[in-house]
Amino acid sequence: MIILGIDPGIAIVGYGIIEYKNNSFKVLSYGAITTPAKINLSSRIKSIYDDINTLLAKYDIDALAVEELFFNKNVKTAIDVAHARGVIMVACSNKGIPIFEYTPLQVKQGVVGYGRAVKKQIQEMVKIILNLPEIPKPDDVADGLALAICHCHSSNHSDIFRA
Amino acid sequence: MIILGIDPGIAIVGYGIIEYKNNSFKVLSYGAITTPAKINLSSRIKSIYDDINTLLAKYDIDALAVEELFFNKNVKTAIDVAHARGVIMVACSNKGIPIFEYTPLQVKQGVVGYGRAVKKQIQEMVKIILNLPEIPKPDDVADGLALAICHCHSSNHSDIFRA
Repeated sequence: MIILGIDPGIAIVGYGIIEYKNNSFKVLSYGAITTPAKINLSSRIKSIYDDINTLLAKYDIDALAVEELFFNKNVKTAIDVAHARGVIMVACSNKGIPIFEYTPLQVKQGVVGYGRAVKKQIQEMVKIILNLPEIPKPDDVADGLALAICHCHSSNHSDIFRA
Repeated sequence: MIILGIDPGIAIVGYGIIEYKNNSFKVLSYGAITTPAKINLSSRIKSIYDDINTLLAKYDIDALAVEELFFNKNVKTAIDVAHARGVIMVACSNKGIPIFEYTPLQVKQGVVGYGRAVKKQIQEMVKIILNLPEIPKPDDVADGLALAICHCHSSNHSDIFRA
C-alpha cells in the first residue's frame, strides 16, 4: 500500500509518500509545500489544495495519515493550520482516499516504539527505517514521513491481530 | 451581481444567495447546510464541501462573503469551524470566485448602519431589506444573508467612491 503522511501547516506542509509491502518500506517522495506569509489565507489554502492534488495525481495513494491538530498557545496559528488541514483532508476525500488521524503520542509509539521519545529520536528512526542518507529537513518533512511510517506500523499490527 | 454570504460552522453552515442590481436586492436562495455530530470531522467537511459545490453549480456566484472566524473560548469548536471554513473557501477558489471576509463589526455596520447593533436588530434589518415574510431560522441563515447584504453595501460604497 502507498501512504501519504502529512504534517499540516499553513506556511509549511511536510509530506512523505511511502510504499509499504511485505514489511518493507520504499520512499517514493517527500518534501514541503510552502506558502508565503504575504498572501492572504484563502490564496494560501488554495495553493496547498492544488499542490496536494498534484501529489494525488502523481501517486496512487491508498491512505492519508495526518497529524491531529495540537492546540498550542497560539490560537491564531492553530486556526490557520485548521483551514489548511481541512483542504488537505477534503482533497483526499474527493479522491476516495481514507483518512487516518494520529496524535503525536501515537506517532512516537508507532515509529520509535515508546511514547516518551523526543523529536530527535523520531527523526533518527525515520532516517534508519527508510534508509535515508540524512534526516530530511525541515522538521515538518521528517514528521510527514513519521506519520506515514506510523500508519504502516499501525495497519501492520491490525493485520497481525486480524490474522 | 450575485453574492453568496456564508456564516461558517461545522454543525451548521448558514448561507444566503442574493442578487444585487440597481441598488435593489433579490433573494435567490437561503438555508442551512448541516452535518451530524456522530460522523467524523473528515466526513463532515467533505459533506460541507460537496453541498457548497452543489450551490455553486446552481447559481452563478460573483463573490463569496464569509464571516471572519471569531476566536471564542472554545478552541476545539473554533478549530473544527476553521476546517469547514477552509473547504468552503477552497470550493469557491476552485471556481475562481473572489472571497471577501467581514468581521461581525463590519456586518453590523454594513447591514444596520452602526456597529453596536444587537443580533435581533440585524435579523430584523435582514428581513426588511430582503422583504422576507419572517426572520429566517436558524440564526446562522440570517447571518449568512446579513453577510451577503454587507458585501453588497460595501461594494456599493466602493462604487460611489470610485465614481
